[in-house]
Amino acid sequence: MMQNGHAPIIILVRPQLGENIGKAARAMLNFGLTEMRLVAPRDGWPNPSAGPAASGADIVLANAQVFETLGEAVADIHHVYATTVRKRGVTKPVVTPETAADEICAAPGKSAILFGAERSGLDSSEVGMARKIITVPINPDFGSLNLAQAVILCAYEWSKRQQLVSPPATEIAPPAPQAELDGMIEQLFSMLNEKGYFYPPDRTEVTQGTLRNLLTKPGWNSGEVRTVRGMLSVLKKGKGDARTPD
Amino acid sequence: MMQNGHAPIIILVRPQLGENIGKAARAMLNFGLTEMRLVAPRDGWPNPSAGPAASGADIVLANAQVFETLGEAVADIHHVYATTVRKRGVTKPVVTPETAADEICAAPGKSAILFGAERSGLDSSEVGMARKIITVPINPDFGSLNLAQAVILCAYEWSKRQQLVSPPATEIAPPAPQAELDGMIEQLFSMLNEKGYFYPPDRTEVTQGTLRNLLTKPGWNSGEVRTVRGMLSVLKKGKGDARTPD
Repeated sequence: MMQNGHAPIIILVRPQLGENIGKAARAMLNFGLTEMRLVAPRDGWPNPSAGPAASGADIVLANAQVFETLGEAVADIHHVYATTVRKRGVTKPVVTPETAADEICAAPGKSAILFGAERSGLDSSEVGMARKIITVPINPDFGSLNLAQAVILCAYEWSKRQQLVSPPATEIAPPAPQAELDGMIEQLFSMLNEKGYFYPPDRTEVTQGTLRNLLTKPGWNSGEVRTVRGMLSVLKKGKGDARTPD
Repeated sequence: MMQNGHAPIIILVRPQLGENIGKAARAMLNFGLTEMRLVAPRDGWPNPSAGPAASGADIVLANAQVFETLGEAVADIHHVYATTVRKRGVTKPVVTPETAADEICAAPGKSAILFGAERSGLDSSEVGMARKIITVPINPDFGSLNLAQAVILCAYEWSKRQQLVSPPATEIAPPAPQAELDGMIEQLFSMLNEKGYFYPPDRTEVTQGTLRNLLTKPGWNSGEVRTVRGMLSVLKKGKGDARTPD
């Protein structure tokens, strides 16, 4: 699993709808976060609406810990981040999810990210529990992130920094060796020559240079070069005499 | 506003629920993307469920363009990306949302990102229209991104680059719009068909898909596409009846 000692704990403070708790769990697990804490969920816990919305992230919900106060929920946490839209009068550092993820991955000890109630967000005493604030740089003319979206962006940034979540390695074949490409180009030039394409003669070199550039650009692999050669053969002689591609 | 000439267009292919179209619009506008296209939305358009789910992103929905086919929707696009979970046998480069955002910000011409239907995703012929694939590096044990989440991560990565990236001054011609590429491909298919290349008939679709992938890969610009079409004309009719390439 991707989880390591520094994976941040997601703390939902006074969440309202069970559905949103489930969606947050799903967002977390998509990016390898598994530890959720709930502070004074409005409708109690467990909440029957959470499971269906989690789309299979039941393990996160099953292991969620519930606390009556935020103080209890963060008692063992070394680095508390509060998510909020930026407010006047804030006297704490404000960081992006990117920077927070960098810090969390480098920090010794446990980190947690606080998310407030769906509409009202975190109040100032709750923000006061945090050392730093995370603000997502959002469209200033339309800021409308919901809880699960805020969670997923923080989880995604954390996940990007984990060695185990490497970008998908492409299994793409390398470009064909130059000799194979040259064979294909010669075949084409020969066909074009028969049809009178290289006329007038004094422009032949320039024209061939143009075509060579164009045919080098794709980076076709050996199989693709064979396919092109097969097509050329068919265009010249018809299917009966030509090899079928692949 | 953050919007600039290179902001990617979000194309939802065969979206099912209006609610999900609305959520995608909200996700887009949160990060400054405003241009949405819909290909064959299952329940028609406009859809009364979309507006409430957009949470105020009505401008995106109001301006959404609807197309019957994906081919029409991407006709004017130079850089088409397909989002997909990883599949075996993919013969295109696979990039992360991060890398795609880097590329889109640096690329001349219009870019678009395709998102498939909610459950089934993009089919292989739809993926075949794209030059590259975007895959979000997700928890391998629990991959459950919904449409709006996939959209928001791509939009977020694009948005992050807007403060930093100035419009590129590259003089490289962009890939030809998709419609020009399609014209070239149709010309080739027609010639191959006359020569009996597509035999047996039950393999035609697969073979055409292979060729389309191969011909999409180069990213030929408009001039290169014209050159290829000129060559094809000469191969068919000889120099006398064909246009000379520049």
